[in-house]
Amino acid sequence: MINRVKAAVAQLVGGTGSSSSPWNCPECSLAFQYSRPAFLHLSAEESERAADHSTRPILVTGQDRRRQLLPWDTGYAEVINAGKSVLNEDQAAREIVSVEKRVCKNSTAGKTAKDDERDGLQFHYWALFDGHAGADAAVMAARLLHLHICEQLRDIVDVLRDGDVPPPISLTSNAGVVTEGGAKSAPHQGDWEPPTDSESRFLLEKEISHEYLVIGAIENAFRQMDQQIEREQSSHGYLGGCCALAVVYLLGKIYVANAGDSRAILIRSGETIPLSNEFTPESERQRLQYLGYLQPHLLGNEFTHLEFPRRIQHREIGRKMLFRDYSMTGWAYKTIEKDDLKFPLVYGEGKKARVMATIGVTRGLGDHNLKVYCSNIHIKPFLSCIPEVKVYDVAKYEHGVDDVIVLGTDGLWDVVSDREVADAVIRILSNCEPDNPNRFTMAAEDLVMRSRGILKEHGWRLSNDRLGSGDDISVFVIPLYGHT
Amino acid sequence: MINRVKAAVAQLVGGTGSSSSPWNCPECSLAFQYSRPAFLHLSAEESERAADHSTRPILVTGQDRRRQLLPWDTGYAEVINAGKSVLNEDQAAREIVSVEKRVCKNSTAGKTAKDDERDGLQFHYWALFDGHAGADAAVMAARLLHLHICEQLRDIVDVLRDGDVPPPISLTSNAGVVTEGGAKSAPHQGDWEPPTDSESRFLLEKEISHEYLVIGAIENAFRQMDQQIEREQSSHGYLGGCCALAVVYLLGKIYVANAGDSRAILIRSGETIPLSNEFTPESERQRLQYLGYLQPHLLGNEFTHLEFPRRIQHREIGRKMLFRDYSMTGWAYKTIEKDDLKFPLVYGEGKKARVMATIGVTRGLGDHNLKVYCSNIHIKPFLSCIPEVKVYDVAKYEHGVDDVIVLGTDGLWDVVSDREVADAVIRILSNCEPDNPNRFTMAAEDLVMRSRGILKEHGWRLSNDRLGSGDDISVFVIPLYGHT
Repeated sequence: MINRVKAAVAQLVGGTGSSSSPWNCPECSLAFQYSRPAFLHLSAEESERAADHSTRPILVTGQDRRRQLLPWDTGYAEVINAGKSVLNEDQAAREIVSVEKRVCKNSTAGKTAKDDERDGLQFHYWALFDGHAGADAAVMAARLLHLHICEQLRDIVDVLRDGDVPPPISLTSNAGVVTEGGAKSAPHQGDWEPPTDSESRFLLEKEISHEYLVIGAIENAFRQMDQQIEREQSSHGYLGGCCALAVVYLLGKIYVANAGDSRAILIRSGETIPLSNEFTPESERQRLQYLGYLQPHLLGNEFTHLEFPRRIQHREIGRKMLFRDYSMTGWAYKTIEKDDLKFPLVYGEGKKARVMATIGVTRGLGDHNLKVYCSNIHIKPFLSCIPEVKVYDVAKYEHGVDDVIVLGTDGLWDVVSDREVADAVIRILSNCEPDNPNRFTMAAEDLVMRSRGILKEHGWRLSNDRLGSGDDISVFVIPLYGHT
Repeated sequence: MINRVKAAVAQLVGGTGSSSSPWNCPECSLAFQYSRPAFLHLSAEESERAADHSTRPILVTGQDRRRQLLPWDTGYAEVINAGKSVLNEDQAAREIVSVEKRVCKNSTAGKTAKDDERDGLQFHYWALFDGHAGADAAVMAARLLHLHICEQLRDIVDVLRDGDVPPPISLTSNAGVVTEGGAKSAPHQGDWEPPTDSESRFLLEKEISHEYLVIGAIENAFRQMDQQIEREQSSHGYLGGCCALAVVYLLGKIYVANAGDSRAILIRSGETIPLSNEFTPESERQRLQYLGYLQPHLLGNEFTHLEFPRRIQHREIGRKMLFRDYSMTGWAYKTIEKDDLKFPLVYGEGKKARVMATIGVTRGLGDHNLKVYCSNIHIKPFLSCIPEVKVYDVAKYEHGVDDVIVLGTDGLWDVVSDREVADAVIRILSNCEPDNPNRFTMAAEDLVMRSRGILKEHGWRLSNDRLGSGDDISVFVIPLYGHT
């Protein structure tokens, strides 16, 4: 099934029309059926047990099933929520993806299949998707986002492989892109002519690094993925959206792309280094308010772009009250007018902060049908599908056997701090022989256990008796040692 | 004269109409006449010498004129540019400002003038303004910004003094604001009633700290200052704009407000800690592009919000070329269309980066009349007058005798790094007795000397023979020892 989906992706070259898109084929829709990650190789019985909200068993790779260890001995563990939704709305993916450059009939004359393969690139990929309002978007993204990244990279394989010279600013027309019924020449620096003196001030060239091409490819892959979900949602009625955290290891660098409130940290020599930022109504308040200010029709006459520290009552008109607008970080007093009685676009604190009283994350995939309850006001214009991409140059550092990257959905980070995560991982790893390939899985399992807690009389409790996470929790622990 | 201006400011309570505004009084306009900072106490002859672009003498406070040492023994030095403009377009201010809370006739019954004074607050203030297209905006801001900050703080004196309880979210109507012909009651927590159960979800209160009230006051002071410059520019034909970097020390905390490309760093125990970010077409590219994308009419059919690494030529239509839009950090290839031949909204690199080929900074005061050359396209909508305000809690640290804050216009930072500045300051300070009050002035002078360089055959040269700064250069060195 996955192969059929891959074949469909391979055909998707510039296909955007929903009627002719291979993404609407019946096989694709079947491929979006809910299941736990394929790499867990669960039996039907195991799947059923895993869905029990009262016992919340933790699923892991490897350990007593060594054949199922993930590449790089990556550790993975997950647990379902305590009842907030029927399904586990988290999804995970771990892939090794070969990027073949687009076939260029002109340039492949005389080449063998083996040559073509050697010309390609390979990337390693890990991703977590935290769904909301259903698991559909998370399932789709887990099955397909890496293929969209692959698609974006296919156009620039030659450029990336030629790491010694800067990427060309201009390629010949449709360079290297195969269109039906014909092929174009391979990408190469265009026949650009040096400027005359009078032109020169317009023609200073900015040098772009290869790294920024990969970042652009990942950003556009997220956009393509989001557009695909939109097509699926409009044609098949899928619902909901998901946060997406994806890690790509390519040519010695790790790219961490985050859209939502999942989180990645690096643990190196015992220190924690954040590899992502969270995108929430609070962290993106000013972006949202700015859009509401510039395009007030998006607020549907129900919301104000101003922020207030609490809801205002009618009798408070004429009083002075704290507020801030899109340009402010601080607060000031303003005299309340009738318009200020509208509900604030961004409202609430911490995990309770919401955009238009509806959604608690501001970046991710999907949510194309999402509206404010009992209204016709769309939320999507305020959400962004574009991730922030951070780059970690693995080759620049010597990594020890306990140096890892930890990816977790918010179920983990809501109850455990970066430092607590690092301490727990270090404790587990240092208690195992360095050549034990299961130790990263044990670390992932420990993190899920630690954030879920133990079922006691008053619900799931952590070791310090604080409330455990009732959310879905998914964790990757990715070792860095030996990968440069 | 300054006192008359102050008196005018004291009257400016909610005055926005330009016809009745005290800011239009002849005294105010006179107050905006160009001169070097009053605290330098220059004679006419000294002023003339200082304006010599060929010798570029460095002006300092203190040293052989001990009576003119600035409060806190703050060091200051400046030098004029090498000829790029007739006037030195930098301006500086150093003030101690008493914030009297607004007179409340009801509540002052029985109080003496001394009581009122004791009820007020005092803040220390340092600021640098780096003008462009003339010195008018910088002169106005240097004379008045601190008074606008004072005005904003007057409304919240009581709230700030009562540091043990969080600021009230709501005040009674027009609390404490004197209007002509009448007075209101003093600010106090309003007669807000607890919510009924059904209301409670709307009434969760966000707790705002005092610090954020000061930040809001500074942000609004910048906005007021910008609006005042707009009125002056439209009624008196003043031109140009300025970057603004202001430091406020209030109730044990230092607030660093920056709008533009000046820069503040802290040097503590030999380490450098940035206290500001620069706002340039490169650092604010995405904000600018987002506005251009949402409101394309602002681009006047001449500019595209997309960024390209160089200007595109007509014959390149149909080719693939690197680009990025407002949502992207990375770059990708797109097929060039006719619309892409427009000039990019943000173009160029480093110091050469420009908004609409016109201006190299994206935040500051003024520029209300600024248009793209030979067009009717306004630049101001893309500029922001709101500073980023960073807070440094002085009381949290023990400061040594060599710990200082350095403020500099870009004339300094363009040619000397943070580390070089710190090394130079430390060298000067450690060579002086700690009780020498001139040592901070000597450090400021050394920084200006170091960035201006020495006049050689091929122009101004640094000690390593790199090109010295031909720009105006202004530097404050603010000691922290003993101020908690």
